[in-house]
Amino acid sequence: MPNTQNQISPLRVGIAGLGTVGIGVIKIITQHAEMLASRTGRTIEISAVSARSKGKDRGVDLSAYAFEEDPVALAKRDDVDLFIEVIGGDEGPAKDAVVVALQAGKDVVTANKAMLAIHGHELAQLAESKKVSLRYEAAVAGGIPVIKSLTEGLAGNKITRIMGVMNGTCNYILTRMEETRQGYNALFNECAELGYLEADPNLDVGGIDAGHKLAILSSIAYGTQVDFSNIHLEGIQEITLQDIEHVAEMGYKIKLLGVTQLTENGLEQRMTPCLVPASSPLGQLSGGTNMVVIEGDSVEQVVLRGPGAGEGPTASAVMGDVIDIARGIHLPVFGIPAEQLSKAQPASCTAPAPYYLRIPLHNKAGALAQMATALGDCDISIAHLHQYEDEFDAAKASVLIVTEACSKQALQTALGKMEGTSVLAGTPIAIRIEAV
Amino acid sequence: MPNTQNQISPLRVGIAGLGTVGIGVIKIITQHAEMLASRTGRTIEISAVSARSKGKDRGVDLSAYAFEEDPVALAKRDDVDLFIEVIGGDEGPAKDAVVVALQAGKDVVTANKAMLAIHGHELAQLAESKKVSLRYEAAVAGGIPVIKSLTEGLAGNKITRIMGVMNGTCNYILTRMEETRQGYNALFNECAELGYLEADPNLDVGGIDAGHKLAILSSIAYGTQVDFSNIHLEGIQEITLQDIEHVAEMGYKIKLLGVTQLTENGLEQRMTPCLVPASSPLGQLSGGTNMVVIEGDSVEQVVLRGPGAGEGPTASAVMGDVIDIARGIHLPVFGIPAEQLSKAQPASCTAPAPYYLRIPLHNKAGALAQMATALGDCDISIAHLHQYEDEFDAAKASVLIVTEACSKQALQTALGKMEGTSVLAGTPIAIRIEAV
Repeated sequence: MPNTQNQISPLRVGIAGLGTVGIGVIKIITQHAEMLASRTGRTIEISAVSARSKGKDRGVDLSAYAFEEDPVALAKRDDVDLFIEVIGGDEGPAKDAVVVALQAGKDVVTANKAMLAIHGHELAQLAESKKVSLRYEAAVAGGIPVIKSLTEGLAGNKITRIMGVMNGTCNYILTRMEETRQGYNALFNECAELGYLEADPNLDVGGIDAGHKLAILSSIAYGTQVDFSNIHLEGIQEITLQDIEHVAEMGYKIKLLGVTQLTENGLEQRMTPCLVPASSPLGQLSGGTNMVVIEGDSVEQVVLRGPGAGEGPTASAVMGDVIDIARGIHLPVFGIPAEQLSKAQPASCTAPAPYYLRIPLHNKAGALAQMATALGDCDISIAHLHQYEDEFDAAKASVLIVTEACSKQALQTALGKMEGTSVLAGTPIAIRIEAV
Repeated sequence: MPNTQNQISPLRVGIAGLGTVGIGVIKIITQHAEMLASRTGRTIEISAVSARSKGKDRGVDLSAYAFEEDPVALAKRDDVDLFIEVIGGDEGPAKDAVVVALQAGKDVVTANKAMLAIHGHELAQLAESKKVSLRYEAAVAGGIPVIKSLTEGLAGNKITRIMGVMNGTCNYILTRMEETRQGYNALFNECAELGYLEADPNLDVGGIDAGHKLAILSSIAYGTQVDFSNIHLEGIQEITLQDIEHVAEMGYKIKLLGVTQLTENGLEQRMTPCLVPASSPLGQLSGGTNMVVIEGDSVEQVVLRGPGAGEGPTASAVMGDVIDIARGIHLPVFGIPAEQLSKAQPASCTAPAPYYLRIPLHNKAGALAQMATALGDCDISIAHLHQYEDEFDAAKASVLIVTEACSKQALQTALGKMEGTSVLAGTPIAIRIEAV
């Protein structure tokens, strides 16, 4: 139960950042005040807010709250017990203000995946040295309570693998390519027009944003210091409509899939396009929805699905953390004390898997044989092969292959051997088939 | 953070019930002792266990634990801080022991859905009067951390609806009927042989077990005293292979679906067969897997999927609760203090929806017209209609109808009118189509 003092004193929050998420949080706190008081045993009050522009109409009445132009000033205020950071950015005002708030002994709730993926360990050490909470449910997979499920609900499990589709924009592009039969560039432009892309689109389509989220999940799952720099990142820019249609015929979908697993070779963290069975929960995920699959030695597999972004869902996740803090729930930032988090040992190689290959060949005698020889020399067996002529250029052909399980290293060696011959008419594409 | 005393003193547990779940819990506590200590800041020790037969070989070494034949004696032991009840049954030794443990000021973790659905409010009052925890993640949807997600992660939401497929045996029967084209009775017998059925099979196929789970979710979602007696229960016994195949042609699946929502007419709690779109997450759920869909005003929709039963998944859920208690996390049993839970007002009528109807008719002139008149007189519009002759009896026909949204009361009136005519050749079937 919350202690007697908590039942009496209100929790006073300061909100830095008045974009959609900040406004969403204000709406929940004001519109559901009675419900929140009932659920937490105390009232939650907004003392002060911070944003770059005070005057802008944001559709909610902010006149009852003190206003600070500088989030650092907000973080220092005596009437703020809990600092909510929804500014964004891994450096600059967001991080400065979070550090100041933690140093001042205030609890912090943030939605900032980049900051946590890059500076999470140092911030966890700071928070724990000050015996305050640093919470970040909204940083991963929007409204899905995945941090809580992993850190608490499934904490009796040795986690064996986590997989996630955690960038709605990428999944929107990939599923819309298939639905509309348009190419990557057309869908990229559609996303730009719809405002679905970050200011730096590479954060989305390059897999960086989703990679930040994966790094955070890895740390909790394996008790390691968050290690974004060792995530193997590949974006979706090279995926063609042809790839999507070919794999569909074989019963697969292409997803930008994050995978983290601790193998005998070390911690494997990948955020890359993967093939998954069309009939699997991951394969059936379309549009901007997110999904995280958590596998543990006891629970087997739990699948969590929900909106990955947006005002309401992200504010819901922020409020989950705020409510925990109001209820007096405090946990180590990454599930175990930061001082016990081990340094991640990046995997020396990737676990074997079957791959989908698209190999553009010159349409001449012996080309297929040379390609097949390159694979065979590297001990890569072919499970399926389909060759078809280029629609527009009879001198070219594409060979589509599904291999048996092989190592990525062997595959790269084989592709290197092909490049040493004159048979390739373009750059081969290799996409891992993840067993889900 | 756990307080200093918690970091030092071990958490001493007693486990009542040494079936698969109890043994699963013992395995996790013994095999993951170091991981659990790291995650909770203290060691978790088993002091004593209880079961009907001491000597039985259960595949784990129990010699280090004190043994009590009587779970009530276990609940009273001074060396037990936390009492884990995995005996089952809403009355008898399980409940007696839980009451004694709570009265003795011990925290309790249980997997007992029947006990909570029927006696949950009185047990919550007792636990809270003693300022101890009563936790039950394993009681609902096996390994899925749904209680935690609802009570904590999504606590910033006004819950608008919860839907759940929460009885694996029913879902197994329904999906296997479609896969194997066998009737209900054949699959029921298969389940009996596989040991998938409770001792009283009506708990499964009658929807009672799943109804217990729904009653618990309702209480948390709407802040109401758990009210199993007002759940509208219908089992799957009347579902025919023909129904499954007909609705499949229209793009639907039949699920035993629990739905709880608070409408202007009161709290609506139903556990009945429903049609859901085959392409929806619920429609795609096959076999014994469970799924819970939580809808809130901010988060929109979160879908949780995982194993609904079994040693590992259920033990994982029990351990989630044990870990929370070891970490010093205490919450009101149903999310808000028991004294604030309101008495549920059962809905006076069911929210309107489209229905699937199968109406056996005598194949004679005017029969269809009389049936259609009965519907029309009750203001029920027909969206689709398909009539086909009985395969074995040319004197009979079946009419399949999908109605526009209508009230269940209007539908029952219409079916009553039909019964007053001579056109019916059997009992009509009506299955709600739930919008998911």
